[in-house]
Amino acid sequence: MWADLSMENCSIARTLQIVGEKWTLLVLRDAFNGIRRFEDLQTRLGVARQVLADRLERLVSEGILERRPYREPGQRTRHEYRLTEKGLALHPALVALMQWGDRYVADVEGPPVVLTHRDCGAPIHVTLTCEDGHAVESPRRVTVNPGPGAKVRPAS
Amino acid sequence: MWADLSMENCSIARTLQIVGEKWTLLVLRDAFNGIRRFEDLQTRLGVARQVLADRLERLVSEGILERRPYREPGQRTRHEYRLTEKGLALHPALVALMQWGDRYVADVEGPPVVLTHRDCGAPIHVTLTCEDGHAVESPRRVTVNPGPGAKVRPAS
Repeated sequence: MWADLSMENCSIARTLQIVGEKWTLLVLRDAFNGIRRFEDLQTRLGVARQVLADRLERLVSEGILERRPYREPGQRTRHEYRLTEKGLALHPALVALMQWGDRYVADVEGPPVVLTHRDCGAPIHVTLTCEDGHAVESPRRVTVNPGPGAKVRPAS
Repeated sequence: MWADLSMENCSIARTLQIVGEKWTLLVLRDAFNGIRRFEDLQTRLGVARQVLADRLERLVSEGILERRPYREPGQRTRHEYRLTEKGLALHPALVALMQWGDRYVADVEGPPVVLTHRDCGAPIHVTLTCEDGHAVESPRRVTVNPGPGAKVRPAS
């Protein structure tokens, strides 16, 4: 069925058009970890200032980050960047990328970061679950169906 | 604590260095949907042949795809590309990107594709769960801790 579907409105492709750039995803990673200010982001990422400014502007215009003024005593007003609800919704995607990296490309000592549940302290993982509450253990247990927005692919 | 950690061994950054390129992730998307042959991938993606060849070669050298010979009657031997276990482990990351796109950038009709659990038919979602079995509803319920491979960031 996949071969018959148009990819024009693919949700993965559209998401990547917005956030699918290395620096964009690393900015979001840092945003999730409380790094909110341009100077701090720039120092940590080691990215060119103009590239960082471009990525932040795009994330703000997409409604993923919100630009908020702040002012340190004796300084001019500056801005910090905070995740909106739309931005917070990207968390599982970043954790899923991290989890794969932890498993396949971490140093021998192990993962540099471990996520735990604030409420109980247990380690956190990304999982696929169905609405009936089953854990979906493998991509082979997943069926891909045309959704309400499915479009047939034009004949090539 | 995040600000004190070296990003040199960040699992997100390392993962993006391997798969964090638009065409690479779209090749993997199609691989998960059973598109395995160069010509089929090229037609569907509309990507330049050399770019596709480069991405496939990288995915094979990283052990994410496996190149297997096949032969149609009367044709020369060709190759198809199949996900390895390491490749299959990227599934939650792709589903998480799709889920975000379904929610925020789908057409008004709704998502083009719906994933269901093969065993019970219920729709599938990516979720964060802790090892004690709790659903982690929000990034705010997550604590970020230094892991066994944590390195302190050099003073700048």
